[in-house]
Amino acid sequence: MDIYSCLSSVREKSPLVHHLTNWVTIYDCAQVVKSFGGSPVMAHAVEEVEEMISIASALVVNIGTLTTDFIESAQRAAVAANRRGLPVVLDVCGAGATQFRDRKSMELLEGARIDIIKGNASEVARVAGYVVKTKGVDSSEIQEDLKSIAEKLAAERSCTVVITGKQDVVAGNSKIYYVDNGNDMMAGVVGTGCMAASVIGTFAGANPEDYAFAAAAGLSCYEIAAEMAVEKAGGPGTFRGHLLDCVTQLTEDIVIKKQKVRS
Amino acid sequence: MDIYSCLSSVREKSPLVHHLTNWVTIYDCAQVVKSFGGSPVMAHAVEEVEEMISIASALVVNIGTLTTDFIESAQRAAVAANRRGLPVVLDVCGAGATQFRDRKSMELLEGARIDIIKGNASEVARVAGYVVKTKGVDSSEIQEDLKSIAEKLAAERSCTVVITGKQDVVAGNSKIYYVDNGNDMMAGVVGTGCMAASVIGTFAGANPEDYAFAAAAGLSCYEIAAEMAVEKAGGPGTFRGHLLDCVTQLTEDIVIKKQKVRS
Amino acid sequence: MDIYSCLSSVREKSPLVHHLTNWVTIYDCAQVVKSFGGSPVMAHAVEEVEEMISIASALVVNIGTLTTDFIESAQRAAVAANRRGLPVVLDVCGAGATQFRDRKSMELLEGARIDIIKGNASEVARVAGYVVKTKGVDSSEIQEDLKSIAEKLAAERSCTVVITGKQDVVAGNSKIYYVDNGNDMMAGVVGTGCMAASVIGTFAGANPEDYAFAAAAGLSCYEIAAEMAVEKAGGPGTFRGHLLDCVTQLTEDIVIKKQKVRS
Repeated sequence: MDIYSCLSSVREKSPLVHHLTNWVTIYDCAQVVKSFGGSPVMAHAVEEVEEMISIASALVVNIGTLTTDFIESAQRAAVAANRRGLPVVLDVCGAGATQFRDRKSMELLEGARIDIIKGNASEVARVAGYVVKTKGVDSSEIQEDLKSIAEKLAAERSCTVVITGKQDVVAGNSKIYYVDNGNDMMAGVVGTGCMAASVIGTFAGANPEDYAFAAAAGLSCYEIAAEMAVEKAGGPGTFRGHLLDCVTQLTEDIVIKKQKVRS
Repeated sequence: MDIYSCLSSVREKSPLVHHLTNWVTIYDCAQVVKSFGGSPVMAHAVEEVEEMISIASALVVNIGTLTTDFIESAQRAAVAANRRGLPVVLDVCGAGATQFRDRKSMELLEGARIDIIKGNASEVARVAGYVVKTKGVDSSEIQEDLKSIAEKLAAERSCTVVITGKQDVVAGNSKIYYVDNGNDMMAGVVGTGCMAASVIGTFAGANPEDYAFAAAAGLSCYEIAAEMAVEKAGGPGTFRGHLLDCVTQLTEDIVIKKQKVRS
Repeated sequence: MDIYSCLSSVREKSPLVHHLTNWVTIYDCAQVVKSFGGSPVMAHAVEEVEEMISIASALVVNIGTLTTDFIESAQRAAVAANRRGLPVVLDVCGAGATQFRDRKSMELLEGARIDIIKGNASEVARVAGYVVKTKGVDSSEIQEDLKSIAEKLAAERSCTVVITGKQDVVAGNSKIYYVDNGNDMMAGVVGTGCMAASVIGTFAGANPEDYAFAAAAGLSCYEIAAEMAVEKAGGPGTFRGHLLDCVTQLTEDIVIKKQKVRS
């Protein structure tokens, strides 16, 4: 399995990726899935989440604008996805910012099998039990070694852990991957982190053999598109559109030449 | 009545188009109305939907991210719009994907007069009683003849029926229209279907004499703008902005030359 | 204190601006804060709004898509912000359109100290007790003198009042400012008004000594960016991205040369 073949699988299988996500970046999450060749669906009514899972290939939950109702629906969707053996991605967006967010993240982690936990350094560290404070939804500096945090949490929960940042760290399947694609612009654009979770869900849905490698491959492709987009963008506003264009322009040559994934 | 005069009416009257729509594409729905010259309002609190209707020219309901509360508000808004004789557009977004969605679509169709039912092929077929399965919010292939489905449903419910796709089919007022504008890019962009419903509402609000022709005219203008936009776009991300630009650039010459509406 | 130093404070301090805002323009509100150098957070669950305030520098409430739950959360957030002495901005989006909106605006104004009331002419006039009707969320023409309305309301409520429009009027701190930056394009773009409230919150959060001047400075910088953006945009669709780019490109020279704030 290589990175480009993971992308090809997405384009061939067009996985339906069900989202329970936040209201800020919901459009971007849907469009990035569609740009990659998947089919996004965003539905959060408790009455239909389980049935929607019955036609899905992956579930992405993002707690960015969580409420109690939302978490109840997410819980049900995750359990239904577990039953079908679909990958469940949890973006612990803003974990560490409030106790409510921490508590609800833990409820989700206890109430269903989460296959891929994704967040920035302080969010994932918080979920892993470290005492850190997240500044809203942006990461705070943390001193801990990210590799150790990711590996420990992945082992404890038998899942894949993705820590996004300048260098992304992916631990799972007893392996660790580092992704060095991307650029500084991404941190200045609302939604780049949320889209990363949707991309991971899309790649895991189409490449269910190895979630850790699928996540690393997805991040690499997405961030290569970001590298292409920054050449065209005048700033964070126009970057958004170019990123969603460039995802569709990824070719085998580009991916092979530009990927920076090492294990 | 011709297509351009329908567009002129929109620009002259600037209809207030009240929306109860989904959270994914709500910005795009608002902006497409504004780009056409209308005035969008998005308000879903059950306490105010009826009063908002009292100052509106049209109502657009889109069930993309429906919940029970949302449907209750939509129901009230639709009944209030019926009382005032305003056009009510229902985008049956995702009908066929879950039973909840089918049931709620039917509740809306039974609880108020829906003047224009709009969806893609599998969504409208489902509402018309065919056994089809919608893949999330994207259309599935169906074998039935779209003209027959549209005409039958329009006759049964004495309403206008719009099936969007490569070729749009509009049945109503004992007529049938085919709209062949647009392009393949549209299917790759999240929100193009939702915006179509908002455009139809805007055109029907400003041209209440003939909803079927207004719908066909609105779709044609919108899709001509899409044809112009694709010349400028690098992909689905930048297409979005160009589409919303090009809507404002439609002139009489362009519309006359490019429209592909036949009955 | 001058305008550029207000902008510099934003960039240096990177204030966390907590939002309870509407679902239509929530992305744009977040991104404009980020483009200016602040850190946006959008969280509305009643269980966490108070704790989120404990790490914030400002609160922005926008009632565009209000519901009863939303207002309860906003109320709590505002009281918590009052306790910490943070600036609270209320965008009375759509006030005058329905009684529900008027009543809920008044509840917020009575239930907490609102430091900055922001709206277009008819919205602010309505809150000030004038009999006006707002057309959805777009302004209606009003005959009253905006300076008088702003000054009277600012005095009555001991707050800052911002009336946005072709010329913005800011009254507070016993002063009045007029901002003549910006352009006609802005009225054709969904979200420019909502973003203005977020900008005001960001500037007030970083410049708490004088909310009225901070508001005027923020509006001027934001509208200078709009002047730059219109040169690059093909219409209201692409304007959106360019505006969010140009905010990051504001320099001391540009601000000094282009600002049109007078008192």
